[in-house]
Amino acid sequence: MHRTKVKVVEDALDANNTIATANRADFDRAGVRVVNLMSAPGAGKTTLLERLLEGGLDGVRPGVLEGDVQGSMDADRLSVYHVPVTQLNTDSGFGGECHLDANMVRSALPALPLDEIDLLIVENVGNLVCPAEFRVGEDARAMVCSVTEGEDKPLKYPLMFRTAELVVVNKIDLLPHLDFDLDRFLANLEKVNPGVPHALVSARTGEGVAAVSDWLVGAARREPAAA
Amino acid sequence: MHRTKVKVVEDALDANNTIATANRADFDRAGVRVVNLMSAPGAGKTTLLERLLEGGLDGVRPGVLEGDVQGSMDADRLSVYHVPVTQLNTDSGFGGECHLDANMVRSALPALPLDEIDLLIVENVGNLVCPAEFRVGEDARAMVCSVTEGEDKPLKYPLMFRTAELVVVNKIDLLPHLDFDLDRFLANLEKVNPGVPHALVSARTGEGVAAVSDWLVGAARREPAAA
Repeated sequence: MHRTKVKVVEDALDANNTIATANRADFDRAGVRVVNLMSAPGAGKTTLLERLLEGGLDGVRPGVLEGDVQGSMDADRLSVYHVPVTQLNTDSGFGGECHLDANMVRSALPALPLDEIDLLIVENVGNLVCPAEFRVGEDARAMVCSVTEGEDKPLKYPLMFRTAELVVVNKIDLLPHLDFDLDRFLANLEKVNPGVPHALVSARTGEGVAAVSDWLVGAARREPAAA
Repeated sequence: MHRTKVKVVEDALDANNTIATANRADFDRAGVRVVNLMSAPGAGKTTLLERLLEGGLDGVRPGVLEGDVQGSMDADRLSVYHVPVTQLNTDSGFGGECHLDANMVRSALPALPLDEIDLLIVENVGNLVCPAEFRVGEDARAMVCSVTEGEDKPLKYPLMFRTAELVVVNKIDLLPHLDFDLDRFLANLEKVNPGVPHALVSARTGEGVAAVSDWLVGAARREPAAA
């Protein structure tokens, strides 16, 4: 008798990973690279996207999937840049889900014009904990951390900072008005994610945004890694 | 035959509410009022607590229950003020829980010196979504929102702003350096939580902290409402 041993799924997150892998396969087939963009509420993800879309991405055609508990304010802000923006709301529950998961992104797939885009930027729900636990089918992860949040954040939310492949340090125009110690922040970041690249940015003034743009263009042109 | 009809528990949050009610009864018996203090990461909860503990609370004896994913940095910062500080970490899971729930607070009860305190301030995990969904046995809820987070936050995280009984608008010392429109923020707050009191505060300079102190003293001296 032929017997096959199936390993029992132990991880509660495995169901999410299964769907994330399916999403990733669909994105790969369509030739679309996906970046999962995460941060705390108000760190400046949307303002950064405004600057990036304004400046263009060196021929790369971007699309945005906006994750929010409620409303479409961010999608409305981005719609003026004439790129495909799709809104995903997580408030079917009582107070809403605090993160996007793979199944939510899967439900948005039919609404995404994948043939019109090269790079899908998923703007996750503002939260430094759960978004880091749920892959959605992305090729790469970037996070935004504002200098107004304090130097301790990498140590307090280690998984988020550890799984990011680019850390955008935003609102540097405010540095002269804060007690924020940038060297201490970068040392804390190095502790949880040694060697991770970072970009010093003011999405408000545009300073440093070009480096983020370059990183995204690189991510869009990279060959897909194994999911 | 005697028959009793028991209503089936429909709400997944009911288990949490049951434990929260038990916590509340224990706090009431000990004569301790409880305030659940919530905010996004880096909004300034701990700095606000430093100023409050520094200034004293008009004879009210405070204690702090510190909720963090990992580490005890905030508890360490507060320990210099010679008030009981208890650390609660939520990182038993993969990336950690993004909020405190009633059962976590219940597990901390034996460690809390309830006979030495009149007011327990629960500093929740930095997150604008899930902490609002999980009561922990508090008498009142306060939240901190930093002006660096943008005017749109009440509309984007409505449950948090709707269930707060005091909204501390923090970092007002930065207003001259931001595009933040305070009137628009307050109008958005009024939309989701009409009439809720707010305090304009700079925890950094101490401006406005006295109003928060007064509110906490009032909360500590209030007769317990029905749980």
